[in-house]
Amino acid sequence: MEDKTAFAVGVATRDSCGRIIEVCYRAPLLSPPLELLSELFGEGDLDSDAACVILPVHEDRVEENKRRPMVATFCRLGKPIVDVADAYLKLNLISSRMLFPNKVNLSNLFNVLPTLAWTSYGAFTIDFAEKLLWNSRTKGQQFKIYSVDKFPPLLDYCVPSGVRIADSARVRLGAYLGEGTTVMPSGFINFNAGCHGPNMVEGRLSQGVMLDGGSDLGGGASTMGTLSGGNDQLISVGKDCLIGANAGIGISLGDKCTVEAGLYVTAGAKASLIIGDQPPKMVKASELSGRSNLLWRRNSQNGQLECLTNDKNFQLNQELHANN
Amino acid sequence: MEDKTAFAVGVATRDSCGRIIEVCYRAPLLSPPLELLSELFGEGDLDSDAACVILPVHEDRVEENKRRPMVATFCRLGKPIVDVADAYLKLNLISSRMLFPNKVNLSNLFNVLPTLAWTSYGAFTIDFAEKLLWNSRTKGQQFKIYSVDKFPPLLDYCVPSGVRIADSARVRLGAYLGEGTTVMPSGFINFNAGCHGPNMVEGRLSQGVMLDGGSDLGGGASTMGTLSGGNDQLISVGKDCLIGANAGIGISLGDKCTVEAGLYVTAGAKASLIIGDQPPKMVKASELSGRSNLLWRRNSQNGQLECLTNDKNFQLNQELHANN
Amino acid sequence: MEDKTAFAVGVATRDSCGRIIEVCYRAPLLSPPLELLSELFGEGDLDSDAACVILPVHEDRVEENKRRPMVATFCRLGKPIVDVADAYLKLNLISSRMLFPNKVNLSNLFNVLPTLAWTSYGAFTIDFAEKLLWNSRTKGQQFKIYSVDKFPPLLDYCVPSGVRIADSARVRLGAYLGEGTTVMPSGFINFNAGCHGPNMVEGRLSQGVMLDGGSDLGGGASTMGTLSGGNDQLISVGKDCLIGANAGIGISLGDKCTVEAGLYVTAGAKASLIIGDQPPKMVKASELSGRSNLLWRRNSQNGQLECLTNDKNFQLNQELHANN
Repeated sequence: MEDKTAFAVGVATRDSCGRIIEVCYRAPLLSPPLELLSELFGEGDLDSDAACVILPVHEDRVEENKRRPMVATFCRLGKPIVDVADAYLKLNLISSRMLFPNKVNLSNLFNVLPTLAWTSYGAFTIDFAEKLLWNSRTKGQQFKIYSVDKFPPLLDYCVPSGVRIADSARVRLGAYLGEGTTVMPSGFINFNAGCHGPNMVEGRLSQGVMLDGGSDLGGGASTMGTLSGGNDQLISVGKDCLIGANAGIGISLGDKCTVEAGLYVTAGAKASLIIGDQPPKMVKASELSGRSNLLWRRNSQNGQLECLTNDKNFQLNQELHANN
Repeated sequence: MEDKTAFAVGVATRDSCGRIIEVCYRAPLLSPPLELLSELFGEGDLDSDAACVILPVHEDRVEENKRRPMVATFCRLGKPIVDVADAYLKLNLISSRMLFPNKVNLSNLFNVLPTLAWTSYGAFTIDFAEKLLWNSRTKGQQFKIYSVDKFPPLLDYCVPSGVRIADSARVRLGAYLGEGTTVMPSGFINFNAGCHGPNMVEGRLSQGVMLDGGSDLGGGASTMGTLSGGNDQLISVGKDCLIGANAGIGISLGDKCTVEAGLYVTAGAKASLIIGDQPPKMVKASELSGRSNLLWRRNSQNGQLECLTNDKNFQLNQELHANN
Repeated sequence: MEDKTAFAVGVATRDSCGRIIEVCYRAPLLSPPLELLSELFGEGDLDSDAACVILPVHEDRVEENKRRPMVATFCRLGKPIVDVADAYLKLNLISSRMLFPNKVNLSNLFNVLPTLAWTSYGAFTIDFAEKLLWNSRTKGQQFKIYSVDKFPPLLDYCVPSGVRIADSARVRLGAYLGEGTTVMPSGFINFNAGCHGPNMVEGRLSQGVMLDGGSDLGGGASTMGTLSGGNDQLISVGKDCLIGANAGIGISLGDKCTVEAGLYVTAGAKASLIIGDQPPKMVKASELSGRSNLLWRRNSQNGQLECLTNDKNFQLNQELHANN
């Protein structure tokens, strides 16, 4: 976990009670100079885990500033999340490639983030969105609710360079997309998860999971997460791996591994490990977690889960990932 | 099937021939007072299976009322669908939590509902949308077609409390989402299907399928439906079940069942039923449909489908489902 | 590969340097009359593989024409892609049902197409979209980025008759959707892929894959592609096939084939072929590629991949595919 501070200026949205419900930051900084901070924040603020101040604005913007104030936020990466401004800053830092996933303290995140309606008029509380839905209908105005969630799409907040995201709804703010990442319409990247790039993501990256460069997560493939009914250990995928379509992993993969299309390798499954000329050995999949150069498949004649030395060298199609 | 009547006021859209093509209702009522109905509808109307009248409007709204009239609709839940206004009222009743799925007569639905283009300018017939696409392009105006379908997103029509829907395109009007439901970007809930809540839905709920409270439908998991090439019997899922990622069920589950990630339990599959110390017994999966406390898995050493007593107690992550 | 020429008029978008970054065509023509071409294009143009000219416009449109010029484009279907205008014309021809997939030369496509931000204000280069995101925020204006990709949604460019597309993000420009095609929210059709119609598509059609009429690709089902870590041979699916939910194919299917839900048939798998009374024979799946009347399943008692004569006659639910 990082022990640094971070800082950013952003535009917030307030609800009808004046509470900040989300913040869009621009170009956040790690370890900002102390002079900058002490000019904006009081001493008490700088001693706390995070702080957010409303910035004074030009008189043209006074009215606008009531609902959507300019703010400056400061936070400590190693501390639990304090408020909405802090939460959005930490998620933004990951999506802005200032921090890898799993390097910032996100405890308290679900408690702090309000569920919002993300709409064609901006972000609103649920109650308010419900009223807008009906009012806009009676007036013949168009009002679209894209989602009702605690997490907005990354592309509402920043545009990482050198990536493709085929459907903004499938990459949450807080996802990390390294240069050369392509996320197809069936791909999904949760907050605090991502890929080093270049990568092809046609499957789902659960919270906490990282994919190393050169790996391909096939269509509909699953990486088991730790939030909902899944694993108790975070998993990761090494370099130059191919996880086939509709496959899944409940263990980590090292480099140059292949999982056959349609095969789910759960941590508790017992595999027949077949290495070179050695006699096959029965091994729990979790014991092979993180090991490189393995090919996972189900023997189509006897249904046995097999783990062999991987002698194919998988390579991403470079044409697809030269993204500009 | 319910034998009640229902009533609502809404704003409709008409096509260029003046026919109603969709209706957005507000706060529908079950068993409305007869006085209310007889004030709005004629006697012939009240004898029929459903009726829709255009409401008189304030003169400010006369022009708007031509394309988007205010309407009042009355219907009988037990009768087949008569027209568009009736269809949208029945679907809305389910999404507004006035009725559970499978309690209202939806026969004739596909015949009655027109396929529409759902756009940033509202709902249109296909022909008209095609023209708008080109006309708006030549004028440099932005026009977005979100979908071309018989069913619109639920979030275009109402906003249920206490839920999260990560992508509006994946929950159709007519879905039922109980309090505490979260639908992730790979989740999907068809019309006349849903969950009692709290539930995690990262897989697909086919038409007619209900998930009872506390259950988790994993990423990409499938519940076999009856509309397209699937089952002939509607299935359901009990309380506190965990259907793993990329798994699927062609049978119903009782309470506290687990289906291993990646395993599809089809109704016709033969499973080795292993209960306590009894010798394993070969049983057709359909014979175990609806039974509680079962764990379904594929033996990773011999490929056999196994059904055991489930001795793990699955619990939803409460932090994720405290939604507001 | 077709050896014809094609022609269309469209509205293009230019970037800040004046380069064309995308073109929306209207009603493209195959083998246009030479007189039409020679009026619009110079001789050198007509000798080349493709050409695009900016059309003169009425003075009302001069300003608009700078960013979004009217263009006329000519191309040869058999030649590699030359520029953006050529690429968009070829993709449009497929989506407009003038050409089936795999009949036009798309080489050079990934090199020619720029990655763009597809937004509520139109198409922009990535740099520009990033600036717009922040500028619109500070001004309190709504700006939505739907995707960042080389391929836009088909529904941004044309509206094929008699189809349903439940989520525009899941059908790319260049997809072919025959009359009576329904694409559900988990379906996906890549460019240069599609279905003859009527078809139910709840799974993923990879680049180059065609589904023949009457077939159903179940929820989350996969067709292995040739672009990313998949097959080296293009696959196809015949008439009246049922590929179950979460299933997948790495081989072609003939007519009247069924693949059991949850089963992935990879090309290299060995299947026990059981035809009539003949003794079972071990056959590589790839040797059965394209054969009709087969049922693929995994024996639930011994895990063996089996291929039997298919004696069920699958039929699409006609009610769902009468789309108007």
